[in-house]
Amino acid sequence: MRRHRKEDFPLQEIRRFLEPGPVVLVSSRWRGETDIMTMGWHMMVEFTPALVACIVAPGNHSHGLLRKSRECVINLPASHMIDTVVGIGNTSGSEVDKFARFGLTAVDGDAVKAPLIEECHANFECRLHDDTQVGKYGLFVWEVVKAHVAVAPKVPETIHYRGDGQFMISGRQVSRRKAFRPEMLP
Amino acid sequence: MRRHRKEDFPLQEIRRFLEPGPVVLVSSRWRGETDIMTMGWHMMVEFTPALVACIVAPGNHSHGLLRKSRECVINLPASHMIDTVVGIGNTSGSEVDKFARFGLTAVDGDAVKAPLIEECHANFECRLHDDTQVGKYGLFVWEVVKAHVAVAPKVPETIHYRGDGQFMISGRQVSRRKAFRPEMLP
Repeated sequence: MRRHRKEDFPLQEIRRFLEPGPVVLVSSRWRGETDIMTMGWHMMVEFTPALVACIVAPGNHSHGLLRKSRECVINLPASHMIDTVVGIGNTSGSEVDKFARFGLTAVDGDAVKAPLIEECHANFECRLHDDTQVGKYGLFVWEVVKAHVAVAPKVPETIHYRGDGQFMISGRQVSRRKAFRPEMLP
Repeated sequence: MRRHRKEDFPLQEIRRFLEPGPVVLVSSRWRGETDIMTMGWHMMVEFTPALVACIVAPGNHSHGLLRKSRECVINLPASHMIDTVVGIGNTSGSEVDKFARFGLTAVDGDAVKAPLIEECHANFECRLHDDTQVGKYGLFVWEVVKAHVAVAPKVPETIHYRGDGQFMISGRQVSRRKAFRPEMLP
């Protein structure tokens, strides 16, 4: 799999990657056990601090690791990783070591103990900000505390899930920058 | 603008349209006043009931209408509506009637008083399910109680926002249906 040279990325701009709605891979670690899950149910919550919400149902093996460790990494796979994304979504971390099974490289984070997935275009290290809605909806609110993004390509081709085994791959870029009021541009 | 023949759509399948992360238009009505806002911060929460969360900051004129009416319609614009989407995001409902300004057709809903936007590919009528996180994050949890979806095209070309006036238009469809375990396919 491809590897990337990555740079630190400004936290208040991570919406560039998450707001378009791609499938992401969430990696976690608790007492030496690691897991990865495929996730499509997430949204931006705030620019600063950089808050992201997501839904992880208790049936996911990762759920317990996330609750106990209160950390994760949100990794952004590009389209060439689609079969890895599907494979990760179709296996349980209670049965297999997903890094080994899918030939992925675990890299240490700077701020969290959860491992980064080297092969992904971007890695967002997260600490749990709010767990009050975890019991009701499996809704975690994370603060992104460190962001690593590949220097190229500037705009990765991302994977978006429609359900029923059907994916959409991100398409063309369109600028409407000149139509925006300046204060609407963050 | 184009109009569509629409049919009722199963509520447990609305993730087809929302999970890929498109920009949506949220319409609301309270005591005769209507508004529309552009929204990119939303996610699926549950299949049944069909729950969707979104972030609407108090600075948006729609915020008050949503809180008071406890209803909205989430409308899905296709790519030909991109300039309308930008225009709506760059004006305030406190100053203009957005239906009139942007030549949109307000259609009565079946279950809510908020108006549907006829020109959109899909319309999801919503009732407020949970407002406990509105004060903290502007996070509303909606229950979709009625869904109307255009019969064609089956997969609309959607608009996804990257910030800074830059959009991504949805691209090609890829099936991995055969790679999924049946229970993973909803």
